[in-house]
Amino acid sequence: MSIESTPRLDPALAAGNLQQLAGYEARHFRWTVQGKVATVVLDRPERKNPLTFESYAELRDLFGRLRQATDVKAVVVTGSGGNFCSGGDVHEIIGPLVRLQAPELLLFTRMTGDLVKAMRACPQPIVAAVDGVCAGAGAIVAMASDLRLGTARSKTAFLFNRVGLAGCDMGACAILPRIVGQGRASELLYTGRSLGGEEGERWGFFNRLCGPDELLAEAQKLAAELADGPTFANGITKTMLHHEWAMTLEQAIEAEAQAQALCMLTEDFTRAYEAFVARRKPVFEGN
Amino acid sequence: MSIESTPRLDPALAAGNLQQLAGYEARHFRWTVQGKVATVVLDRPERKNPLTFESYAELRDLFGRLRQATDVKAVVVTGSGGNFCSGGDVHEIIGPLVRLQAPELLLFTRMTGDLVKAMRACPQPIVAAVDGVCAGAGAIVAMASDLRLGTARSKTAFLFNRVGLAGCDMGACAILPRIVGQGRASELLYTGRSLGGEEGERWGFFNRLCGPDELLAEAQKLAAELADGPTFANGITKTMLHHEWAMTLEQAIEAEAQAQALCMLTEDFTRAYEAFVARRKPVFEGN
Amino acid sequence: MSIESTPRLDPALAAGNLQQLAGYEARHFRWTVQGKVATVVLDRPERKNPLTFESYAELRDLFGRLRQATDVKAVVVTGSGGNFCSGGDVHEIIGPLVRLQAPELLLFTRMTGDLVKAMRACPQPIVAAVDGVCAGAGAIVAMASDLRLGTARSKTAFLFNRVGLAGCDMGACAILPRIVGQGRASELLYTGRSLGGEEGERWGFFNRLCGPDELLAEAQKLAAELADGPTFANGITKTMLHHEWAMTLEQAIEAEAQAQALCMLTEDFTRAYEAFVARRKPVFEGN
Repeated sequence: MSIESTPRLDPALAAGNLQQLAGYEARHFRWTVQGKVATVVLDRPERKNPLTFESYAELRDLFGRLRQATDVKAVVVTGSGGNFCSGGDVHEIIGPLVRLQAPELLLFTRMTGDLVKAMRACPQPIVAAVDGVCAGAGAIVAMASDLRLGTARSKTAFLFNRVGLAGCDMGACAILPRIVGQGRASELLYTGRSLGGEEGERWGFFNRLCGPDELLAEAQKLAAELADGPTFANGITKTMLHHEWAMTLEQAIEAEAQAQALCMLTEDFTRAYEAFVARRKPVFEGN
Repeated sequence: MSIESTPRLDPALAAGNLQQLAGYEARHFRWTVQGKVATVVLDRPERKNPLTFESYAELRDLFGRLRQATDVKAVVVTGSGGNFCSGGDVHEIIGPLVRLQAPELLLFTRMTGDLVKAMRACPQPIVAAVDGVCAGAGAIVAMASDLRLGTARSKTAFLFNRVGLAGCDMGACAILPRIVGQGRASELLYTGRSLGGEEGERWGFFNRLCGPDELLAEAQKLAAELADGPTFANGITKTMLHHEWAMTLEQAIEAEAQAQALCMLTEDFTRAYEAFVARRKPVFEGN
Repeated sequence: MSIESTPRLDPALAAGNLQQLAGYEARHFRWTVQGKVATVVLDRPERKNPLTFESYAELRDLFGRLRQATDVKAVVVTGSGGNFCSGGDVHEIIGPLVRLQAPELLLFTRMTGDLVKAMRACPQPIVAAVDGVCAGAGAIVAMASDLRLGTARSKTAFLFNRVGLAGCDMGACAILPRIVGQGRASELLYTGRSLGGEEGERWGFFNRLCGPDELLAEAQKLAAELADGPTFANGITKTMLHHEWAMTLEQAIEAEAQAQALCMLTEDFTRAYEAFVARRKPVFEGN
């Protein structure tokens, strides 16, 4: 370009959308930001961190705002007290649901599905750190994350079948087979049985296992490494990993040609090249 | 609802469709029903249980009727004499096929494809119990089942390539990669080689291995557990597992929101909640 | 048919397209043909066999011509000097790319995507023989092959993230999850880390591992076995393995019914039947 300095989108123009989330004050879980990494801690340990209508809605809104966040580049999701999440609270969610009628039920299932959509639509890679109980909607939150670290003692159960429901909850029949294969996903969804940690690693559900004491630190370390990478490009990777999965091969290759050409115009690509030539480690800035 | 008692679809209205299959008398295989579990036994052990034009057609029709069955809630498919199925009979199928012309050949390949469609369209989960030889169309029947139990000595071969044909038989190029991954499916379909039991478990083709003597009982036990579950919801799980696989993520999540809201209106969902509150095991009725 | 001898497509009619590639003289890699098996050797061992604009273009054109080849029935791709391929050359590709503008960048990313399309569109199964470094576009070439043999010491890295780019390169976000699952593919594409040989076999990226000294011979032996098979049918298998992956199950089963009926009209199918009846090994001719 013949323009002297690179123009930027005026943040004031988009001020209604751009989000600074380091100072966000969460009401239904813990939210902390260290450097460019945010951590969500589901934090009702006495009940193994169940979800409620309110925490579902707040998580959906928060991941929706992360789409425009300028300060958070990767997210860790975990639970407190040695468990990840026991799913929808029996008394606060299941009880009310059995008395609702069709329109309200669809409002609920769409709200939970919107959480998964928001987790997939934000550009930040999400690392789930899974220890102990990871059940129902908790298993879904782990599944909808980009990467999963587990512990040997973790127990992941898509237990919808055990409460009289179908396995098709929040995208599970579409997403889980892509992670562990159709036969193993079928077993988990038909039986509701727990997947152990070692089995989960062997099946590719967990990227790796950690000791319970190192789990959160390992997840945050991985997230920090991603956050120090070319975060614009990482967001494109995330978009394409889901955007392409129902495309033909020809559509996917054309979509990647366009997306990667866009990434080649970023300064991060130039930074990497210059660092390589100068034999130093590149410092990415996400633009 | 303000109506006093729950109305039911009058069975007499749908009598042409509703099926009682406990008393079905099979002509080309064995068919038994114990409780809510039906078992199909391919039963020509002296030839390792090959399929014929007649047994293909009867299986297609039977699985088609299972879609309306009111008494069968899960199905086991197995073979007699220590083998699962040797595929299309060389003398009774391959011999005639080499003399047919295009329209008749397409009638045949569509009939075999219709068997897979019927296996996927019926709401009952199908558990394949695979011992010994599982070859050609036999491997397809195992693949098209929902869950697979094998034995260490089982040999599963998609051997179409060995008889001069393509690996794209009855959906194999679409289904097998979803179960074991594209690279491993490619190997099986290009080479026609046998997949051993342990390898098959490692790859996720088999859900688990059993001793040959326990295989059928284990498969029937698993099927009985599923049949005691929320069978309406299980049928929705089955539908969605295939219905969603070429959907975008957004389409899948909306489809699941609707499907799960429907399941939340079943009495099985209420039964599970009430059982949980009363600290007892739920008794599901499939409605 | 009542015609006395089987008519053939006059090669003269299609002479502009039919290709004899045994005598092809490659300019940017080594190309040899032994029997019906061609071998591509990326051969700049002092730089670990990087790709250049010219070798990309020649590979794309060569795989394009293989679609009409009458003498080559399977292809092996490998590298010399104990490495597979180090990807796009930093000085000859990355350096120029950082100075190009959008239209030229899209020309480049479409050219590289066209290589993958050509590898998937030719009917010959492609066996990648991977030792040592297999990085960037090299990892893509291995991924886009049909079968992969590796070595324990091989290091496969989709390292686009390390050079400031997205993981969506040449189809990776669509193809890699189909081979190793969505969770493991995400890890490789977000982090750019190396996948070791044993891990790669465990994940289904490699079909099997060989010793470095036997690797090329094993790959050529496997390719020769495929080339001695029913090669018309193998080409249909290859077409369907990709053609079906965004189809619904019903579309896939109908597509396979048509494709397999076509294969049943080949003489190779008759040859296999007659050989079986005569208790001898069939000799396939690819028609």
